[in-house]
Amino acid sequence: MTKKIKVGIVGYGNLGRGAEASIAQQPDMELVAIFSRRGAEGVEPLFEQTKVEHIDEAEKYVDDIDVMILCGGSATDLPEQTPEFAKKFNTVDSFDTHANIPAYFESVDQVSQKSGKTNIISVGWDPGLFSINRVMAEAILPKGETYTFWGKGLSQGHSDAVRRVEGVKAGVQYTIPSEEAIASVRNGENPSLSKEERHKRECYIVLEDGAVEADVKEAIVTMPNYFADYDTTVHFITEAEMERDHQKMPHGGFVIRSGETGDGNNQIYEFSLALDSNPAFTSSVLVAYARAAHRMNTEGRTGAKTVYDVAPNDISAQAPDVLRRDTL
Amino acid sequence: MTKKIKVGIVGYGNLGRGAEASIAQQPDMELVAIFSRRGAEGVEPLFEQTKVEHIDEAEKYVDDIDVMILCGGSATDLPEQTPEFAKKFNTVDSFDTHANIPAYFESVDQVSQKSGKTNIISVGWDPGLFSINRVMAEAILPKGETYTFWGKGLSQGHSDAVRRVEGVKAGVQYTIPSEEAIASVRNGENPSLSKEERHKRECYIVLEDGAVEADVKEAIVTMPNYFADYDTTVHFITEAEMERDHQKMPHGGFVIRSGETGDGNNQIYEFSLALDSNPAFTSSVLVAYARAAHRMNTEGRTGAKTVYDVAPNDISAQAPDVLRRDTL
Repeated sequence: MTKKIKVGIVGYGNLGRGAEASIAQQPDMELVAIFSRRGAEGVEPLFEQTKVEHIDEAEKYVDDIDVMILCGGSATDLPEQTPEFAKKFNTVDSFDTHANIPAYFESVDQVSQKSGKTNIISVGWDPGLFSINRVMAEAILPKGETYTFWGKGLSQGHSDAVRRVEGVKAGVQYTIPSEEAIASVRNGENPSLSKEERHKRECYIVLEDGAVEADVKEAIVTMPNYFADYDTTVHFITEAEMERDHQKMPHGGFVIRSGETGDGNNQIYEFSLALDSNPAFTSSVLVAYARAAHRMNTEGRTGAKTVYDVAPNDISAQAPDVLRRDTL
Repeated sequence: MTKKIKVGIVGYGNLGRGAEASIAQQPDMELVAIFSRRGAEGVEPLFEQTKVEHIDEAEKYVDDIDVMILCGGSATDLPEQTPEFAKKFNTVDSFDTHANIPAYFESVDQVSQKSGKTNIISVGWDPGLFSINRVMAEAILPKGETYTFWGKGLSQGHSDAVRRVEGVKAGVQYTIPSEEAIASVRNGENPSLSKEERHKRECYIVLEDGAVEADVKEAIVTMPNYFADYDTTVHFITEAEMERDHQKMPHGGFVIRSGETGDGNNQIYEFSLALDSNPAFTSSVLVAYARAAHRMNTEGRTGAKTVYDVAPNDISAQAPDVLRRDTL
């Protein structure tokens, strides 16, 4: 039997926990340790046998870990951690600040070109699987339009925004793709649609004692940037309902390319996800791409990489001949 | 400006014609010539300026063509042509006899390991894009079930079968995925479904003069292997209706993986195609992968390959830094 891929997890929030659960599902991987700023005392892992170390101890594991899954946030953790870890480890991360990806890629690549490590950035579903499908669909159907719809999903930023409204005790916001818009795209109509026209917003609010529904609703639906330009619905619910129905972090969406081949025929290419837990799925993507980072490194494919550099064979636990025989 | 990729087409049926149309849509490719057993006299290309040569002349183009798109059939053309062309050319083909893929791969690889060419086999949508999605979904969600549904689509083999029934003047058969089955899978129910339960069959028949509807219908719906085990509907139509409504070759389908992440949450991964022209789309996939065959060869990635070896960057006309900036 081949040796298992030895994996480390850096950061233990929703993503880190999801990565721990996902590694346990993979036949060819073992988790060596979780590294956290909180240290062993501050972290309660899913599995009793999981080792937890302070993040400062990571360096001592250089020879014991094939790839590190970096589960920190894009705002401050990853821009600092990834170039640092890339000096000594293969890594994957989910850096998702779109506008900063080119600079981030360069900052990582500069390190990994020297260290000879393989560091795959911006892994997940968007950026990630959605990006792959945008690129493949456009390569195959150069004439056409690509549409991305997000949802139904819990939006962290918009949930935070409604919770800041006066009179709101608790609140969540879901982004909902417009069914009419999706139907029009699938129908090959190539509509011209703004982000606001492609999505609706739905809020579930628990009021503070004495707060007035109409005032809270007005404050939400007129909030600039967040809600004013959208079709927004506000539902008022009890605390018990919030507790019962709105604790999950569902998300998903659609990438649809409506293209026209040279003979004038319309061709619809579609990819979609419907996720009951956004962080659990995102971390499962990270874990599969951790396999790729390790493999690509053993094959001498070093440097900063993105999902665009990774082939299906690189992320699969199966051998290429088995895949050809059983799934091609 | 970079030099365009110089492409040849071998075989000029529906796929060859689709490849000619697709190459004209690509910004970085030029068609050097079509090669046909019928020679220049026997082929009428889409574009007046397209050069047509007898297939025996292909060898003379060794220095003028970067990649050959092999558009022959899987039964007899490709098993003979691909190992022959792999001696001198990078190639892509759409070999789709699933059971023979391992042997076919070996026969091509033996040649291309010596010749140093890159030869991507079994390219299209199934095998092809559907296969990629099966592999990626299972790598990300190791616990779960993968479902493939085909259609709505014209089935060549089943259309031939109904046309052989006595009393049938003209006929076509469409494979239709069961909507109830798709809904159940999307709902995370992980149903156990045979191919017969996942699909329905719909036939459109023009009767010969004097033929009896009931007899023809009975002969079709009881036909073993083809229809007996399926929910089959037979519609009788006029010749004019056949001419007006059933001349296209639509196809498509769905790959859905219903998986469960380690936290017990259900996650639905779905890929689908709705194609107004099956051969036009399949040839567009071949053309995008022709780009990959050429690129991979210039990078020293030689030998027989499948879609599992090809990364999104390899098939895109855009440079990696542009893709990172604009679509990641």
